[in-house]
Amino acid sequence: MSTTHHTSGIAAAIDERRLWERHMAMARIGATPRGGVNRQAFSPEDGRARQLLVTWARQLGCTVSIDAVGNVYVRRAGSEPTAAPVLTGSHLDSQPTGGKFDGAYGVLAGFEVLEAMQHAGVITRRPIELVCWSNEEGSRFQPGCMGSSVFTGKRQLSEFLRDTDKDGITVEEALQATLAATPDMPQRALGCEVAAYLEAHIEQGPLLEAAGIPIGAVMGVQGSRRYTVEVLGEEAHAGTAPLKTRKDALKAAVSMIHALEEVMADETDTVRCTIGRFEVAPGSPNTVPSRAFFTIDFRHPEQAVINHLTGQIEPVCRAHARGCEVSVTRLSNVAPTPFDPAIIQTVRQHTARLGLTSMDILSGAGHDAMYMATVCPSGMLFIPCTKGISHNETENTRPEDVAAGTRVLAECVVDLANR
Amino acid sequence: MSTTHHTSGIAAAIDERRLWERHMAMARIGATPRGGVNRQAFSPEDGRARQLLVTWARQLGCTVSIDAVGNVYVRRAGSEPTAAPVLTGSHLDSQPTGGKFDGAYGVLAGFEVLEAMQHAGVITRRPIELVCWSNEEGSRFQPGCMGSSVFTGKRQLSEFLRDTDKDGITVEEALQATLAATPDMPQRALGCEVAAYLEAHIEQGPLLEAAGIPIGAVMGVQGSRRYTVEVLGEEAHAGTAPLKTRKDALKAAVSMIHALEEVMADETDTVRCTIGRFEVAPGSPNTVPSRAFFTIDFRHPEQAVINHLTGQIEPVCRAHARGCEVSVTRLSNVAPTPFDPAIIQTVRQHTARLGLTSMDILSGAGHDAMYMATVCPSGMLFIPCTKGISHNETENTRPEDVAAGTRVLAECVVDLANR
Repeated sequence: MSTTHHTSGIAAAIDERRLWERHMAMARIGATPRGGVNRQAFSPEDGRARQLLVTWARQLGCTVSIDAVGNVYVRRAGSEPTAAPVLTGSHLDSQPTGGKFDGAYGVLAGFEVLEAMQHAGVITRRPIELVCWSNEEGSRFQPGCMGSSVFTGKRQLSEFLRDTDKDGITVEEALQATLAATPDMPQRALGCEVAAYLEAHIEQGPLLEAAGIPIGAVMGVQGSRRYTVEVLGEEAHAGTAPLKTRKDALKAAVSMIHALEEVMADETDTVRCTIGRFEVAPGSPNTVPSRAFFTIDFRHPEQAVINHLTGQIEPVCRAHARGCEVSVTRLSNVAPTPFDPAIIQTVRQHTARLGLTSMDILSGAGHDAMYMATVCPSGMLFIPCTKGISHNETENTRPEDVAAGTRVLAECVVDLANR
Repeated sequence: MSTTHHTSGIAAAIDERRLWERHMAMARIGATPRGGVNRQAFSPEDGRARQLLVTWARQLGCTVSIDAVGNVYVRRAGSEPTAAPVLTGSHLDSQPTGGKFDGAYGVLAGFEVLEAMQHAGVITRRPIELVCWSNEEGSRFQPGCMGSSVFTGKRQLSEFLRDTDKDGITVEEALQATLAATPDMPQRALGCEVAAYLEAHIEQGPLLEAAGIPIGAVMGVQGSRRYTVEVLGEEAHAGTAPLKTRKDALKAAVSMIHALEEVMADETDTVRCTIGRFEVAPGSPNTVPSRAFFTIDFRHPEQAVINHLTGQIEPVCRAHARGCEVSVTRLSNVAPTPFDPAIIQTVRQHTARLGLTSMDILSGAGHDAMYMATVCPSGMLFIPCTKGISHNETENTRPEDVAAGTRVLAECVVDLANR
């Protein structure tokens, strides 16, 4: 893969105001009172977000299609109709209390690239496809990156169809309802040859903002492992049972989390270890809890550190069980993903040619680009987000950063589609 | 108050098998798969338990009545119709995952006393009333001891009527539905003059079983305070947000509980400090929790220790807030209750006269007898429960212990009703 040594000029056709207004329009779907969005995967709000994207795509004269897992594609033809396309995109689903930019930025930036090309009359050799992946977040239905993992053949749709959300609704039911929101879409097969994949995203961390740098050239995604821990003790009367005889599932779980925090302590602040769910039963104030349940989300860029630290989870939990039964279950295991060096270099070069600064950065979050990296040269570019806050209704970024990232994305995508 | 020096002979009329079978019949109402009961206050199961008691009482020829808070009374007349009655009883409501004997034992033992008197033709000077108090447990509607606190005028029914359970049902609605389960009952006024109150109960602790002693002469009830702690932090992405910048409500709450456990540490194992509810939000595995909420149930026999240790709850929580906001709210505050020395002595003496052994014991749990102690000479007697397990579906006791306690109760009640 070679790189060109001049810009296509497409960056000049990016319209900052139009792009920002599309973000605000999309954020009205599933808007929450505190300024965020609740647009969980395969919900009615997810369906309406797809409808809006499809409406805009048709107004622009692009071809739209959808596959069996609900990934939506918006295609702008190239001069060689049979050439493998360049893909760009992200996702429109959100956390239950998510922000306006996580995912939506990559979709709307990709759409702006198509619109800018249309207005500027730019035709590339390869087709360019904007993709909106299904269920990236994985908060309503696990695991996340459902659309891209199925597209790349790493998972089968049939594995998930009977899984349920907390209200007992299956993936199959929710997916069918979402597909029905955009009924008149041509179906396409799952997977295809892809020339390259580039995804734009907010950083979801504080580094770019702190450095005052508008573009992150993403080197790769850190590895992650997800666990559940279930602690079974014994109910007892809060007023009578001596503490020495109790099998208090809550206090055991608290000891485990406290001890894990000490084991995971890291002066460099690189380890990411999060307890996001924690439940106790029966949940009566005057009964000693007989069951506690919590999740552990662990992430780190280095496989050796992941192996070493997560290897201590089960022994630490057992050592702090206080007479309770403990079961530790590993739900997922994703190795660190390095991105394609040529894609990283393309992002760096076009950033520099536009007179902007970039820094190399590692992604703390998982993204669909991890799965795409298994089938084609893939990469990501990041823009700053305010105070590094994400997965939060107050998530924010600046219109000028949104536009700058989209200009770099446009130059990179056009470049890749002309190779 | 004087004491007699001989037994009435009523103990011989206690029927161990009949008494045990009544326990098993009552336990079928709200029976859970694991052998316990779920018969929460003012539920349909609570209504059916009252119906069964009223049916038995009418078969025995006793007078039944009910008051505005739903306390049910079964009266056996004495030779002096206008004399203040002796009351005995307990409650039929249970924890969500409760046992067959907590409360039910005191009601059914009291009923067995009336039945034994009927069969033996024993007539006392004072009337004897068996009482079934409403909502002792306080797990569905707080606070507990609702029936006895309203009977004794320490609380007003109007304070609670608009309180709701977790499904939004008010006390008023649930109480009306429960009253409708026994529609043909004479209404009586709240409160009346009472000569003495004696309540039989399982120990809910391990001391009697461990000592091999069948009867506990209860000296009083330890004091208790209930708190809620709410911790407000900030949502953040589990993969990206550096730990140093997080305001993790769950980890703050875990630190607080861990630190409280150290503060409350007690070699004598007298302190009872329980976290029975613990909730986090939003509860997504890959989002740092922004809210944690937990309850603290604290009990101790000595007021000075209660003041000293609970006084540290708020400072300890604040010291471990880790940048989160904390609010500590005291929900209840019950001083230690000493029981009437003459009642305690009556229990000891009749136990000895029946050739049984008693030990002095303190109640770790709150009971309706605490409220009765504010209006008349009151006391309790305990029987052993298996392994001290209570507020648990496996709660158990032995038929011979159930009968022995009821024999002592019968002798005491007849004695008190002849004074």
